[in-house]
Amino acid sequence: MYHYTALVTCLATAFYFFICARVARAHITYGVKLPATTGHPDFERVFRVQMNTLEWMPIFLPSLWLFAIYISDGLAAALGLVWIAGRILYMTGYSQAAKKRGRGFAIQAGAAVLLWLGALGAICWRLIHP
Amino acid sequence: MYHYTALVTCLATAFYFFICARVARAHITYGVKLPATTGHPDFERVFRVQMNTLEWMPIFLPSLWLFAIYISDGLAAALGLVWIAGRILYMTGYSQAAKKRGRGFAIQAGAAVLLWLGALGAICWRLIHP
Amino acid sequence: MYHYTALVTCLATAFYFFICARVARAHITYGVKLPATTGHPDFERVFRVQMNTLEWMPIFLPSLWLFAIYISDGLAAALGLVWIAGRILYMTGYSQAAKKRGRGFAIQAGAAVLLWLGALGAICWRLIHP
Repeated sequence: MYHYTALVTCLATAFYFFICARVARAHITYGVKLPATTGHPDFERVFRVQMNTLEWMPIFLPSLWLFAIYISDGLAAALGLVWIAGRILYMTGYSQAAKKRGRGFAIQAGAAVLLWLGALGAICWRLIHP
Repeated sequence: MYHYTALVTCLATAFYFFICARVARAHITYGVKLPATTGHPDFERVFRVQMNTLEWMPIFLPSLWLFAIYISDGLAAALGLVWIAGRILYMTGYSQAAKKRGRGFAIQAGAAVLLWLGALGAICWRLIHP
Repeated sequence: MYHYTALVTCLATAFYFFICARVARAHITYGVKLPATTGHPDFERVFRVQMNTLEWMPIFLPSLWLFAIYISDGLAAALGLVWIAGRILYMTGYSQAAKKRGRGFAIQAGAAVLLWLGALGAICWRLIHP
């Protein structure tokens, strides 16, 4: 079983849920009435944090689980925690200014790429050595 | 095996596909030419229904499957059906007016949160009682 | 194990990652400063390629894996490759003009629908013949 990876998946989902709730609050704070998602630059940065996190979900979640299954539950969970930490930095930075999103973005991208590379390498190894 | 959860996953995917097709039709009906996704409030509400459903997918699908694996296939599938029903209400309400999206949203959010809480609780239980 | 489907999942994720990187480059090329995602039609088409691929991920990935588990790893992977090929055609066509996105879209939609229909049929068969 993959208890640690399952736990980190729950944490990542909860963090993403929190980011979605921030957008709902920002709609009220900045007076951006639905269905609009533009109109105030501070709102738009909060919205882009959500969209970018959503955009990375199909990279992060499959890589996380393939890494867990093909390599290690504990190591996948540890890299998943790094991804969440990078995402938190990205959120706090981007909310201040578009320029301040770089460091958090690099950390989460690095964690996701390591998960992906590890999974790909292990899958190829198993295909070559059945 | 998790036949009922697999079936509900197919149903949720099909419903989401239907919501995407509605947006394609709305592009024509309201004369909103791609790549634009704004310009007519009725179109924008149809578009936001799709976006919001997409935004909830990374919350719903992992929670559904972790609940199925750690607790029960049948119960996960039943909560998944409640989620789809809430999503249908959300779609019909939001298509009429932005104000009418509340009840459907609350139902689907409740179902997703129950799936998430159940999965998290069961994962922690297994980690503490190996 | 589902080695071929796992490999195709890695390839689909890598292709989607490449599409996201194109958007980051297009922000610079067309002078569309974040958090904005509109303002230049050439940028908007590149952006819509990413959004549409993201929108199809919750249809493609669950259908791919349910097909692999319920029917065949090799056949799922082959249809997954067709989906990626259709997505590449869609990307190159749409980047030229909104009208040229049709053929690639149809190919990837066909592959995804086959995966979905196969999974649904096999799940129902197993539920009826336990």
